[in-house]
Parts: sequence; C-alpha cells; structure tokens
Amino acid sequence: MTDRTGQVAVIFSSQRRSDDEADYAAAAAAMDRLAALQPGYCGVDSARGADGFGITVSWWADEAAALAWRGHPDHVAIRDRGRNEWYDGYEVAVTTVGRSYRWARDRGNIPADPSLPS
Amino acid sequence: MTDRTGQVAVIFSSQRRSDDEADYAAAAAAMDRLAALQPGYCGVDSARGADGFGITVSWWADEAAALAWRGHPDHVAIRDRGRNEWYDGYEVAVTTVGRSYRWARDRGNIPADPSLPS
Repeated sequence: MTDRTGQVAVIFSSQRRSDDEADYAAAAAAMDRLAALQPGYCGVDSARGADGFGITVSWWADEAAALAWRGHPDHVAIRDRGRNEWYDGYEVAVTTVGRSYRWARDRGNIPADPSLPS
Repeated sequence: MTDRTGQVAVIFSSQRRSDDEADYAAAAAAMDRLAALQPGYCGVDSARGADGFGITVSWWADEAAALAWRGHPDHVAIRDRGRNEWYDGYEVAVTTVGRSYRWARDRGNIPADPSLPS
C-alpha cells in the first residue's frame, strides 16, 4: 500500500517497566497476529528501544474498525495485563491520516497517486 | 499535557541501513532540539529497536506548524542526508488527533478533561 490517506492510525506509546522480555514478546506477537485477522486491518508497525520506551502504530481502514479492535475481548484482557504487569505508563492517540508518502532506497519516492510517474 | 485532541501528529517510520550510531544519534538529537524551538511544537517521541526499525512521532499544534517544520532549511538538509546515508526506506503519515488518553502506574487514568475526577 502506498497511500494511507483516510486511514485511522492508533499511536500507542509506552514505557515498559521490566525486562520480562520473552513473556511480553510472545503476548505482543500474539496480539499482532490477532489484529491482522480483524476487519479493516491495514498493518502494524512497532519499535522499542533499549530504554524500554516503545511506539506501536496500528493502521485501520476506518474508525469503526479501530473501535472494534479496541473492544475485542482478547485485546481488552491484554490491556489489563499490560497495566498490571508490563507498563509504567502509556499514551494512546487515535488519529486520521490526512496524507502520507514513502521513500525507499531501491525505488525512490513512492507516490501516493498511482497515476503519477514513479 | 494530557490531551492531544486536534494536534497534528507526524508519524515517521524508518529503517536504518547502517550502524553509524554516534553520527546518526548526534544528528537526530540536534533535530529534536531544533524542533523544540519551533512555533507550535508539542513534543517528539522516538523509539528504535535493535533491528534498525524506528518510529518517531512529532506533535504539532496545527497543520501550519507541521508544514513550517517540514520546510525548515536544516530539516530539509537533514532529510537529504537521511536518504543519502542513513535510511533504507521510510514512510511519513501526517495525521490529526481525534482523541487521546493516558495512563500512568502512579496516577491511573489521566483524563483528557481536567474537570473530570482523576
């Protein structure tokens, strides 16, 4: 996908409290797999540094899809576990994409409009 | 700040190509300091994992502030350097925050509306 305009991007920024990495990584990977099965799923990107601060962005076709994922019972349960076990704090921002673009070393600018020359 | 509703969040996801960490880290820190001086700056969050994939979210009061930062000459120059030296690829999504919330271990839910009980 080269253009995310109109998608809903849920930005989840969190500070891990411990180094219980295997347990956390398994749960996070399971959530990523489950998210990918939901209607309207458009991808997940995640990064976490050695300091335990991480950002995950999940991309959704629309607000309804993002809300449905928020309400998924397994997702609700894992958020409870996150507060109890994994995080010192987090912030969630639910956003709408106004424009997007990409660049890749082997492709150059990847235009949002497929009718443009690449 | 406890509520980012209405802010512009610029999501920059990138794949680093090399481990030229000291040079890159210095340039990234300089950009963070410069961004913080711009009108409408509301914060920057960054995370990058050992695999070289990172996400930086810069938060702006409005679209004009985000566009002004995009056009800052030093920022333009560092993006050229990023394409030439540091990245295999990146994606930018410019988004508007519809709602946001926070949780912290020592404070619980941090309400967006300061008139609400915490």
